[in-house]
Amino acid sequence: MGVSALVAEEVQGAPAQAHLDKTTADWGLHRLADGIDQKDADTPDNWIPRHPKILRLTGRHPLNCESPLDLLLGAGFVTPVSLHLVRNHGAVPKLDWKTHRIEVGGLVNNPVSMSMDELVKFPSITIPVTVTCAGNRRKEENMIKKSIGFNWGPGSTSCTYWTGVRLCDILKHAGVKSPDQGAHFVCYRGPKGELPKGEDGSYGTSVTLAAAMDPSNDILLAYKQNGRWLTPDHGFPVRMLIPGYIGGRMVKWLSEITVTKEESNNFYHYHDNRVLPPHVDAELAKEEGWWFKPDYIINELNIQSAAARPAHDEVVSLKHNKPYKIKGYSFTGGGRKVIRVEVSLDDGSSWRQATIHRFEKPNPYGKYWCWVFWDLTVETFDFTRCKEILVRAWDSSQNGQPAVITWNVMGMMNNCYFRIKIHPHTDASGNIGFRFQHPAPIELGKLGNMGWREEEHLRDEAIKTVTTEVAAVQAAAPKPPGSKNVYTMEEVSKHTTEESCWFIHNGKVYDGTSFLDDHPGGGDSILINGGLDATEEFDSIHSTKAKEMLKDYYIGDLQG
Amino acid sequence: MGVSALVAEEVQGAPAQAHLDKTTADWGLHRLADGIDQKDADTPDNWIPRHPKILRLTGRHPLNCESPLDLLLGAGFVTPVSLHLVRNHGAVPKLDWKTHRIEVGGLVNNPVSMSMDELVKFPSITIPVTVTCAGNRRKEENMIKKSIGFNWGPGSTSCTYWTGVRLCDILKHAGVKSPDQGAHFVCYRGPKGELPKGEDGSYGTSVTLAAAMDPSNDILLAYKQNGRWLTPDHGFPVRMLIPGYIGGRMVKWLSEITVTKEESNNFYHYHDNRVLPPHVDAELAKEEGWWFKPDYIINELNIQSAAARPAHDEVVSLKHNKPYKIKGYSFTGGGRKVIRVEVSLDDGSSWRQATIHRFEKPNPYGKYWCWVFWDLTVETFDFTRCKEILVRAWDSSQNGQPAVITWNVMGMMNNCYFRIKIHPHTDASGNIGFRFQHPAPIELGKLGNMGWREEEHLRDEAIKTVTTEVAAVQAAAPKPPGSKNVYTMEEVSKHTTEESCWFIHNGKVYDGTSFLDDHPGGGDSILINGGLDATEEFDSIHSTKAKEMLKDYYIGDLQG
Repeated sequence: MGVSALVAEEVQGAPAQAHLDKTTADWGLHRLADGIDQKDADTPDNWIPRHPKILRLTGRHPLNCESPLDLLLGAGFVTPVSLHLVRNHGAVPKLDWKTHRIEVGGLVNNPVSMSMDELVKFPSITIPVTVTCAGNRRKEENMIKKSIGFNWGPGSTSCTYWTGVRLCDILKHAGVKSPDQGAHFVCYRGPKGELPKGEDGSYGTSVTLAAAMDPSNDILLAYKQNGRWLTPDHGFPVRMLIPGYIGGRMVKWLSEITVTKEESNNFYHYHDNRVLPPHVDAELAKEEGWWFKPDYIINELNIQSAAARPAHDEVVSLKHNKPYKIKGYSFTGGGRKVIRVEVSLDDGSSWRQATIHRFEKPNPYGKYWCWVFWDLTVETFDFTRCKEILVRAWDSSQNGQPAVITWNVMGMMNNCYFRIKIHPHTDASGNIGFRFQHPAPIELGKLGNMGWREEEHLRDEAIKTVTTEVAAVQAAAPKPPGSKNVYTMEEVSKHTTEESCWFIHNGKVYDGTSFLDDHPGGGDSILINGGLDATEEFDSIHSTKAKEMLKDYYIGDLQG
Repeated sequence: MGVSALVAEEVQGAPAQAHLDKTTADWGLHRLADGIDQKDADTPDNWIPRHPKILRLTGRHPLNCESPLDLLLGAGFVTPVSLHLVRNHGAVPKLDWKTHRIEVGGLVNNPVSMSMDELVKFPSITIPVTVTCAGNRRKEENMIKKSIGFNWGPGSTSCTYWTGVRLCDILKHAGVKSPDQGAHFVCYRGPKGELPKGEDGSYGTSVTLAAAMDPSNDILLAYKQNGRWLTPDHGFPVRMLIPGYIGGRMVKWLSEITVTKEESNNFYHYHDNRVLPPHVDAELAKEEGWWFKPDYIINELNIQSAAARPAHDEVVSLKHNKPYKIKGYSFTGGGRKVIRVEVSLDDGSSWRQATIHRFEKPNPYGKYWCWVFWDLTVETFDFTRCKEILVRAWDSSQNGQPAVITWNVMGMMNNCYFRIKIHPHTDASGNIGFRFQHPAPIELGKLGNMGWREEEHLRDEAIKTVTTEVAAVQAAAPKPPGSKNVYTMEEVSKHTTEESCWFIHNGKVYDGTSFLDDHPGGGDSILINGGLDATEEFDSIHSTKAKEMLKDYYIGDLQG
């Protein structure tokens, strides 16, 4: 089956496909996720087909992924579901269309327990919406100082068609009470027992009743994506969808909706999706109660842009002066419109205006929910005296992107200028050109380079590491192979159970058994690495503080 | 009558006055505008009482004014009407409550011609709203490169109670048609023949029908301010009030409302209140049709902050280390909430969080329409190694202020960090302290200093001026007194009519008669300066280009 046919199959049922003509030609190597990826084989998610090209950001499990920028933007305005970012906090719940119910209660006159068959009988709408994780571009923040979140690149945004029933229709159906009667919030959550923390182990949050009842907001109980029933990773059989908000409010596997006087009291409502002021670190946040201060909740996305071309580690020859097309995406929140994308090749002294490609029409209330693509043609000659490409966008409220990062403890909402460094480069034959370097891509580039923020970070870390190593050498004499605290790989690989769970990190052996119950990410994510070298998975998700904690579980060194 | 009694009188009728307890104590020297200011004596506005302390930004007439920051913030959350910014494009129309009518037509089923007595019978609401000119802080932009607008300082924002009828109620009363029937915009305008440009000489603009019909937006036909009927400068008898939008959309002396398919075609709708990209100057804008590109319209305010203390030219002694309270205002648009105000004393490396004083409660839909005040106590010792105080704010959509200005041809929406320079200072007795310097205050400070952006600008201008003067000297030999082209003041003062209108600028005499009809600001604003020295008034409102045009009207030099 050709690419176009696959695309057509995936988006089947989505209306207003005319725009696809513009993009299908570029879909290149995409394909549907049609098999189980070997990376999932020994995880609880080993029943879910996933695309082999997604970038897994937290090891094999749970799945948190984005797609490489060139693949993502190459797919065009509508992202194939199999390439859409995924943010899972644990194993994907196995829910059944026939038995799943949504309980609607609280401050309503007619509490409802609704089956999926009942839900889909309500009038539905289908709209394209860009869904973005609030942690998009967090890796750049982590390279300045580790936040408590894992590394997202600039690809944790995607745009698909979503089909669902308006939340306001469901609330009206249940006889929602008025603000005068004390109804001010709509709380909602996924399945109970899904996650390690909070009273019932559910992931829950809330929006204001005013936002929920406002038809201009297009808040949906969504059950189809690109014309097909949801996949398990995207919330099968139903999820909340809130255009213009951060992805974190769009709870998947939606199970309960409760109208209340106060906002959600769910653990994750308070301990996730907040931007605290830059001086607040994890300890201070806890000590001074910052998680519970109402002003720091984040809902609407802010104005954002990033460039996919030049790609990280792309090389452009300087032999002849040629046109070069810089391109990328931009979006904003709250239904606002992206009105300007600008590129500077002189450190911000002057800005060239990019051409915006807008694929959606505003909703009847004038709101915009989707990313735009942009491009700007320069000449390769323009790069000769330019050390950096700067990209920034503006929205219809005249909000722009800041020139520099403001770090925050959750590493969220980073929307500083997207800066690509330009380096002189010669290839093996001595041809002169320029090499481009993104700030913090998830993967090494074709030439083996990391991002420039990562390089800067590593230089800083190297100094710290030397200090730490010296201290370690002084503290303990090296153990020769064969001595009591040196283990072979074979020995380590026997400890894979809840009774005894060992793992390796940077050539050292740790016994994580006693920490299984206390691990913030759940015991399962330690167990799946039991008996294995967990260096890469560990480093991708843990803070400096967590790394320091390792020493309490250190039992010896790996032989060799 | 004491100050409190005057305040009480001015705000009489405004509900929910409890917050005033916090602020009345500070109102200081305020008083109602209770007489005709001599500056207005020979202008068409010589019937309107105005406060003597307002800062007139475009000479005597028409009135465009803001209040000094200390007076404005000293007045507290609710600004006295007499200190509220005013933006007039020409003479204030003399309207009569008894005869004034609002015509409501276009795509409505029942066109209405409504008298004021009829209007005030509709249900009304009273809400506090911060009204801000989109040109607030424009003087900072003009100091980088002259925009086509006059110099506003940071005081072109004010907050009062407004009472009026919801626009959506009036539209419903007139049987407004639906978007399906082609209704998409609500156009509205002031009196015809008021202004020099456009088809009918009215000031008009439009908002989307969706925005107009959304009750959460609180758009009002406002007829009272702080509990009293509107004053002529604020739109008597009725004006449009759109919370969270720039002041430019809040048309005064409201005369006509028309529901339409397309946005307003009024001259000022297209040629005012736009932010064009930084590379577009006045010539390019005209040449390439930028005024008519829909994306560059501005409606919602962006996030803004400024500091009133330390004041410009304030001096702080360094004798003893003492607490010092930095304070100011902040606001944002679109109903968003100001959530953080931060101050840096180390060039942005770290930020201290100011305390926010919020006086309003959100409307039932969670929207905020008012400024907040903020303060942060530091120690005078903190200033010893600090060259600049930086202030920035963030709103609930995580939009912050940019570190640097992005110039635009209308000089609008400047919201870069508010930067106060700190200079070592000794007084006459040799006591050491620090002097503070605002970027671009409207008045010289107590010590005679201008703003730091102005100083930088003048350094640049000085170079240009020297070049120009040299050219002038080369072009024309100096004229001795008594020669044909040297005029006495007495002679000049005779030319004050439409038949012969001379004026003086920087010691040179100009004959403006032939330009009376073509003057973009109207012939009247030349005539009121006929026979006078117009240097100050001319410079405050004209662009570099306009100054260059002067040479075409030069007729000689002033004697002495």
